[in-house]
Amino acid sequence: MSSLFERIRIVLIATSHPGNIGAVARAMKTMGFKHLVLVEPKHYPHADATARASGADDVLANATVCSSLEQAITGCHYVFGLSARQRTIPWPQMSPRECAQYSADQGDAEIALVFGREHSGLTNEELEICHYHVSIDANPDYPSLNLAAAVQIMCYESRLAASTVSVKGGALPAPVEDLERFFEHLERVMIEVEFLNPQQPGHILRRLRRLFVKAQPDKQDVNILRGVLSAVQRVLKGQSVADKENVSKNNT
Amino acid sequence: MSSLFERIRIVLIATSHPGNIGAVARAMKTMGFKHLVLVEPKHYPHADATARASGADDVLANATVCSSLEQAITGCHYVFGLSARQRTIPWPQMSPRECAQYSADQGDAEIALVFGREHSGLTNEELEICHYHVSIDANPDYPSLNLAAAVQIMCYESRLAASTVSVKGGALPAPVEDLERFFEHLERVMIEVEFLNPQQPGHILRRLRRLFVKAQPDKQDVNILRGVLSAVQRVLKGQSVADKENVSKNNT
Repeated sequence: MSSLFERIRIVLIATSHPGNIGAVARAMKTMGFKHLVLVEPKHYPHADATARASGADDVLANATVCSSLEQAITGCHYVFGLSARQRTIPWPQMSPRECAQYSADQGDAEIALVFGREHSGLTNEELEICHYHVSIDANPDYPSLNLAAAVQIMCYESRLAASTVSVKGGALPAPVEDLERFFEHLERVMIEVEFLNPQQPGHILRRLRRLFVKAQPDKQDVNILRGVLSAVQRVLKGQSVADKENVSKNNT
Repeated sequence: MSSLFERIRIVLIATSHPGNIGAVARAMKTMGFKHLVLVEPKHYPHADATARASGADDVLANATVCSSLEQAITGCHYVFGLSARQRTIPWPQMSPRECAQYSADQGDAEIALVFGREHSGLTNEELEICHYHVSIDANPDYPSLNLAAAVQIMCYESRLAASTVSVKGGALPAPVEDLERFFEHLERVMIEVEFLNPQQPGHILRRLRRLFVKAQPDKQDVNILRGVLSAVQRVLKGQSVADKENVSKNNT
């Protein structure tokens, strides 16, 4: 099975502003995609494209320029057309997430994601060449994502679909027995500093227990917390020894 | 329960290029978000910002300009910091999708999504103010999403999450400013009991900060914790008064 990053091509139709082509190259590369196909770009190559690509100039350098959508999608098994508007003719629809997952699941299939003109999108004729229409859910009062933003979202979803492995790191929380000893220690100190009434420790202790259980301190965290408690006790004890010494000096 | 679109504020720190601020406003508005907070923008207001906002000038017009991150997040219950790099200090992490779902699920909580400088991101100090770090999965060889692209993805995920809210109960966590006061109080007491070296408080304080941020204490929890600290201080002070009295008795 070949990688989704190899199988997806981004097709831009009749892009007006070369800066947008550069921004698309950048958006693609940040998500690990590299195959860019330009159908009749208005101005290309162009300094604005290179400037906005900002380090993704390899994607630009390898871009293919075509004279028609048909040519651009040659060899593809699935073609998805991005469409902002609800069309009069209903067509199979997918959300960006569904499209990405579907693409990831299709073994060695070659995939095209087709994006239309900045102001008018894809024509009906172009949309009918696509297998599925994909709409990015947007604010109905202001659905005007720019071209690179739409490509960014589609590539982001495709990247996540390509790698559904979730690795969670981090230290294990402290074993329960360590936490229990901390709670006992905390209770003792709270009584020593007269914050807790030893007759009725219940409510306060329960809240603190819930809080620390939720925090899931690891072994080192518990050591630090107990270190703080011991430091408090040391100071209290040192002072009470000093008191006694003063008292005994008084008596001699 | 108030809408996620009302509860999320986008915070940009020290943005260099005003054009990026405009592009962010546009990205936000396409996804239905409107609260933009700018912390010490280099050039603002600026014609480039207005030009790139392209119809989202209402978002710009209503943007708040602040002089510090603390000011920008006042009143927030959850603060998410966008972070591209793996940091040496581990911190609670979420993916954009987890962050969005989490935010959507927190009833009436005020949420801040904090984005750093174009080239250097957030400082460690700023990252430590955040409850969670969010990394957008990207091409390790070229992870340089531009600012508006990162905002676009976060707002896109948040928009999708807003339509799939699963309501959870429970008290809101304490607002960030209460937590900050607790941290200051904790540091003072740890120094008073000679647990902390005031010259090098960093490592220990950072761990404790992470622990309590993870625990998400509510207002009453914070009151109890500060009550414990105050009790320690009262006892210390009482004893030092007692010491002095003993000393003066010795002298008489």
